[in-house]
Amino acid sequence: MDSEKDRLNALKEDAVQGFTAHCGLEPVSLAPGQFITRVRIRDCHLQQDGFVHAGVMATMADHTAGYASFSLVPPDQRILTVEYKINFLSPASGDYLECRSRVIQQGRTLLVTESEVYAIRGEEEDLVAKALLTMAAVSQEKTSRP
Amino acid sequence: MDSEKDRLNALKEDAVQGFTAHCGLEPVSLAPGQFITRVRIRDCHLQQDGFVHAGVMATMADHTAGYASFSLVPPDQRILTVEYKINFLSPASGDYLECRSRVIQQGRTLLVTESEVYAIRGEEEDLVAKALLTMAAVSQEKTSRP
Amino acid sequence: MDSEKDRLNALKEDAVQGFTAHCGLEPVSLAPGQFITRVRIRDCHLQQDGFVHAGVMATMADHTAGYASFSLVPPDQRILTVEYKINFLSPASGDYLECRSRVIQQGRTLLVTESEVYAIRGEEEDLVAKALLTMAAVSQEKTSRP
Amino acid sequence: MDSEKDRLNALKEDAVQGFTAHCGLEPVSLAPGQFITRVRIRDCHLQQDGFVHAGVMATMADHTAGYASFSLVPPDQRILTVEYKINFLSPASGDYLECRSRVIQQGRTLLVTESEVYAIRGEEEDLVAKALLTMAAVSQEKTSRP
Repeated sequence: MDSEKDRLNALKEDAVQGFTAHCGLEPVSLAPGQFITRVRIRDCHLQQDGFVHAGVMATMADHTAGYASFSLVPPDQRILTVEYKINFLSPASGDYLECRSRVIQQGRTLLVTESEVYAIRGEEEDLVAKALLTMAAVSQEKTSRP
Repeated sequence: MDSEKDRLNALKEDAVQGFTAHCGLEPVSLAPGQFITRVRIRDCHLQQDGFVHAGVMATMADHTAGYASFSLVPPDQRILTVEYKINFLSPASGDYLECRSRVIQQGRTLLVTESEVYAIRGEEEDLVAKALLTMAAVSQEKTSRP
Repeated sequence: MDSEKDRLNALKEDAVQGFTAHCGLEPVSLAPGQFITRVRIRDCHLQQDGFVHAGVMATMADHTAGYASFSLVPPDQRILTVEYKINFLSPASGDYLECRSRVIQQGRTLLVTESEVYAIRGEEEDLVAKALLTMAAVSQEKTSRP
Repeated sequence: MDSEKDRLNALKEDAVQGFTAHCGLEPVSLAPGQFITRVRIRDCHLQQDGFVHAGVMATMADHTAGYASFSLVPPDQRILTVEYKINFLSPASGDYLECRSRVIQQGRTLLVTESEVYAIRGEEEDLVAKALLTMAAVSQEKTSRP
């Protein structure tokens, strides 16, 4: 039995619930320290000018980086987002958004991660947002912030 | 007729559509350079640990600051989020979230804004997120980023 | 003997050494969770357009917030800057810069802080930069990042 | 005569003056949209624990990204730092710091850039800081912020 593979599959499923299910997030692939997700663009994702709302991209950038981090910590730890910064590079429209996140540094408690969000239409993709994020790994029992 | 008041009322209505309607955003009060919004917390806003997802708070922080900025620019301009940074201070739960945003500096094109998100339960409120954001005012015709 | 006061005075002195001495940082006042510092503007602080270099303001914003954090943790802990974000609001010039920092949230390991940098000329002051910063408290022995 | 090459050489020289000269910044190589700089680590760069002060890394990250941006705009424009966010990944020590910056998106007025700072000791290099920055290109005559 491949327990690492089982763990990654369980995390992929766990990633879609509550708000991320509400946003239509779909996992694409999860490897240790790397996660890719997608959202098919629908009217409920748009803002007042007809482009995808920055909040959808920010939610993807944060959540995808969070589960990329999850894949690197022991099963009895959970991941909290400490903070992030995101730049919006182009108005986003198309068939779907794809977010690619990776952990760039893992400390004892903190993980620094990076997310890139692409808008994809047919064969073309356009980098629409880039984020630099800090995650904290805390034991399951603790409910307070690190 | 009070055209300034009409404009603010129109902006308050305009603020809820597409993704922000999907998230349950409600305007509370809008004054020049200041906007307050609320979201009643429901299951669709939660993350894997039962707290409000960071994406809900980030969407509020961004959108509320965006419309606080809208209130300061001529009607033929629209507001784009250039970038923001947000810190999450406490796990958020309670009856509803309230976001209070204000413009701290207005330049020719760029507006620097600040948002504070509070989780409110009964009479108690808790600062759960703080953001520092950069907005750009662009003329309606332009579809590209500044 | 007032050991709290002694501790704060020792921290104020400790704040000026190495790079901050090189930058001309001067402590103004330190209270628990709050620190104010100054830099008298000289030619060595300027950038190519004759304004104060962003690096001077960033160094002040970071260092002043760091020692505001120091004042809240046990003497056997030290403070590391995890990350920060800073907006530059106006070109800075004048007699001196003053940075006012405060801790807005203290967790078990992480402290979230805020810094405002003012350019002061005679009686006038102008907010020239604002930062939102994350600090980590670690025990003296540990040399690695949290 | 290669005017592009002359322009890049002039920018490389221009990059070291005032505060960056005070910090010991040295240009390494400048290509359109990409700049590399170094600082030989000296005692005047250190903080209270004997590591390089975050302010030195932030100044490099900002300034190197600024001149990477300069290389892409017409000669009658200058570059202002709108804001940046920087994560510190490891305590920095060694022989020198090297900062590698590149422009990841150029809009009409705003340029989004990225900087990585490495600490180099002998043959080894360690990524010690990463930044995501927003620059604005403004015409020489304007002295106010965009």
